[in-house]
Amino acid sequence: MSDIVPLRDIPEFDLATDVLVAGFGGAGASAALEARRAGAEVMVLESSSGGGGSTQMSACEMYLGGGTALQHDLGIEDSVDNFYRYLKACFGDNCDEERLKLFCEGAVEHFDWAESLGVPYKRGFFSGRDVVAMTGDSLQYTGNERAWPFTETAAAAPRGHLPADADHSGGLVFMGHLMERVRESGADIRCDARLTALVQDDQGRVVGAIARIDNRDVSIAATRGVVLCTGGFIMNETMTRKYLPDLDSIATRHGNPGDRGDGIRLGQAAGGNVINMGEAFVGIAHYPPPQLTYGIFVNEQGQRFVNEDVYLARLGHYAVQQTGGRVYMFIDNRHFERPAYLEVDIVAVGESVAEVESEAGFPEGALQHTVEFYNRHAAKGEDPLFHKAKDWLMPLDCAPFALVSYALDQIRPPVFTLGGLEVRPTGEVLRPDGSEISGLYGAGRTVAGIPRTSAGYASGMSVADVTFFGRLAGRQAAAN
Amino acid sequence: MSDIVPLRDIPEFDLATDVLVAGFGGAGASAALEARRAGAEVMVLESSSGGGGSTQMSACEMYLGGGTALQHDLGIEDSVDNFYRYLKACFGDNCDEERLKLFCEGAVEHFDWAESLGVPYKRGFFSGRDVVAMTGDSLQYTGNERAWPFTETAAAAPRGHLPADADHSGGLVFMGHLMERVRESGADIRCDARLTALVQDDQGRVVGAIARIDNRDVSIAATRGVVLCTGGFIMNETMTRKYLPDLDSIATRHGNPGDRGDGIRLGQAAGGNVINMGEAFVGIAHYPPPQLTYGIFVNEQGQRFVNEDVYLARLGHYAVQQTGGRVYMFIDNRHFERPAYLEVDIVAVGESVAEVESEAGFPEGALQHTVEFYNRHAAKGEDPLFHKAKDWLMPLDCAPFALVSYALDQIRPPVFTLGGLEVRPTGEVLRPDGSEISGLYGAGRTVAGIPRTSAGYASGMSVADVTFFGRLAGRQAAAN
Repeated sequence: MSDIVPLRDIPEFDLATDVLVAGFGGAGASAALEARRAGAEVMVLESSSGGGGSTQMSACEMYLGGGTALQHDLGIEDSVDNFYRYLKACFGDNCDEERLKLFCEGAVEHFDWAESLGVPYKRGFFSGRDVVAMTGDSLQYTGNERAWPFTETAAAAPRGHLPADADHSGGLVFMGHLMERVRESGADIRCDARLTALVQDDQGRVVGAIARIDNRDVSIAATRGVVLCTGGFIMNETMTRKYLPDLDSIATRHGNPGDRGDGIRLGQAAGGNVINMGEAFVGIAHYPPPQLTYGIFVNEQGQRFVNEDVYLARLGHYAVQQTGGRVYMFIDNRHFERPAYLEVDIVAVGESVAEVESEAGFPEGALQHTVEFYNRHAAKGEDPLFHKAKDWLMPLDCAPFALVSYALDQIRPPVFTLGGLEVRPTGEVLRPDGSEISGLYGAGRTVAGIPRTSAGYASGMSVADVTFFGRLAGRQAAAN
Repeated sequence: MSDIVPLRDIPEFDLATDVLVAGFGGAGASAALEARRAGAEVMVLESSSGGGGSTQMSACEMYLGGGTALQHDLGIEDSVDNFYRYLKACFGDNCDEERLKLFCEGAVEHFDWAESLGVPYKRGFFSGRDVVAMTGDSLQYTGNERAWPFTETAAAAPRGHLPADADHSGGLVFMGHLMERVRESGADIRCDARLTALVQDDQGRVVGAIARIDNRDVSIAATRGVVLCTGGFIMNETMTRKYLPDLDSIATRHGNPGDRGDGIRLGQAAGGNVINMGEAFVGIAHYPPPQLTYGIFVNEQGQRFVNEDVYLARLGHYAVQQTGGRVYMFIDNRHFERPAYLEVDIVAVGESVAEVESEAGFPEGALQHTVEFYNRHAAKGEDPLFHKAKDWLMPLDCAPFALVSYALDQIRPPVFTLGGLEVRPTGEVLRPDGSEISGLYGAGRTVAGIPRTSAGYASGMSVADVTFFGRLAGRQAAAN
């Protein structure tokens, strides 16, 4: 079947609704709920046998700031302006100013909304360094807030909002509540129902869709619009080869099997533009344990290339740029431990840096200089090259020493996509000439949202982005 | 006017031809000539008052290998396989295998074609290091052929084919001959005629176009097809902000005023896909004079990051990745000279490396180590970190020393785009689902061609690519 079916080819629709939402993950569920609350009839199509999407597979941290109730109750200082300055430092010229402002100004309300769904958040602050707080606490640092150069433009504030006592299972908790609210709202939820085509009238307005349900092509009229929330495209190898050629061979595809780019492809077929398609999240979980942050990363030249206290996706961003993706951690016996989430190889061990250097095959003096220079300044609490925070500076001088390989083709880092349809913050899908496609909306990783580069990513940015803008898209479609 | 006009809205076309070519630069002229030679009626639309495009503004090197007549006559050894291996090393996973093979296998014939147009090529080989040979010779090295890591997979061969005695004006010579051949062929060439819309029938076939000629919208039937050759999009600030956000503020826009992305936008409106939109050529002309290659580039950390004997676009690629785009050349009095094509600032001068280091504000020992390490190995003809070729290795030990800033926001490097419509090697524009848009073709920088990253670029790759694949597209359209 073609991606687009002209309205004139459909004598009568099999089903009808006001707002048709494709995808029942974080974005789709948020869109469905808001559209329903705005008074629209809503039908949700989910290609798998149950909803939840990639959001449900995640820990479901939400990256929110500006003074949320949770931040407030825990005495954490943050402001809309400070939150904005941090995100602006993260994405610089690669962001949509209007989207960013809306998000920063709306984040406090968005957290209230999440709590109102019934998602429990515990008034506890985990100040340590971990991907996900395992203490039951709901607030933690999840990005580069305490790392250079971000500390130069924004006061550090923890903004990862995690369902209470959920550890890595926050997604189940969060999506459980959210999907239950959608069900209660009266939305018509159809699982094992994959969106296969959009229906367009002669003026280009999207007036419905075709879905594959029970081995039959079912036509569905959507009088107010279709909202595409089918996730990213990391599971579509044709697309990743095309758009992320350099990452394709090293990536562990991070997402749910439905992340095939269906919504992106159909949105394009309807005339929509795609942007940021060459960018992706690349995560190297170099912590926990946090003490590994005392180590230093070096490249094939034996040179450091990043402050090691960054978030794991920023490390990934820089690691990809190093020759052949060959990166190593040099560490001493005082701080060595195996990383919790990565299988790494120890390349060399020695009683002196010179021994490690020689065993690992670095040219004489290269690694020794790096370590000597680092140690000399670390002893003074300084890192003049990359400005790692003082808390993580301690000379690496406790023999034996080890060099650990984090080579990208060995560790195969998790990768997911950060490009998609170009949409207004309120979800309207845009053509290449900037005009709107009437009746067509998108949210979630089907579109290019707030996070647009691994260099500025923080855990929770996607869940916050997809639910926040999913809500806006649902509301906008309902008002159509 | 809308980008797409339905056929049913056009009662009668004002003009008619078999193949309509939009753009009279290198790609368009090549397409027009081949289509005409294949027996089709051809009309060419050029938005400016004369043809030539960005190809005419260039030195018109063509990057060709595999044993061209010029290589052969000069006793240069190359083979199709060696040529292929070199280009494969340049673009790795970011290339279209079918396109690359066609190009490597067809390059010898393509040079013969260029000579048959009347373009003079002098049987002289310039073996020096310059952006363009100023000796009148027609063959030279123009890329990374003699630089690591390319030397590991392909035997170095010069492949820049430059019109004789033309210096920087090769484009005028080349396009002069090519455009004259197109005129002689009987193609109907219309200047001051900008393509403004495509005409599509109900099945999606492109059957004509609308052009703005003499302040009037003129409809033109194209029975065999439309070939989009309107150049890249570096002059379209809306598009560069969207697709190249990180380069937008530092770029000197390199191209002709017609590089507005017209063909890309219209091809998208007709349903075409775009790929590689985030990639661009970034050139830092760190030579001539060639002796500057003896210097070393360092970043804000005082560390080297590339072998300095690379082509200027590979330096650009790595320079962009350094913190804040702050890169410097360290050089001694024996080798210092001002670069021929760049305005650079001298940041620090000193009788010792320590003095330069201190004056430039590097942390003590950072630059000194880099220079000491480099010098120690250079004295032995080695560069264990970045493998600069032996010819360019000499200790930097002749005081006084200088540190020269090549900061990207000061030198504002020339940038042009390497993304565009996704097309088959023979020019058929593809939809996101991989199907062809009947009647629509593209070539030149309107499409994603052979060169897809600055890291693997060489002078002459665009002109070779746009003319080679322009010819194929013209032939394919004529055969439609």
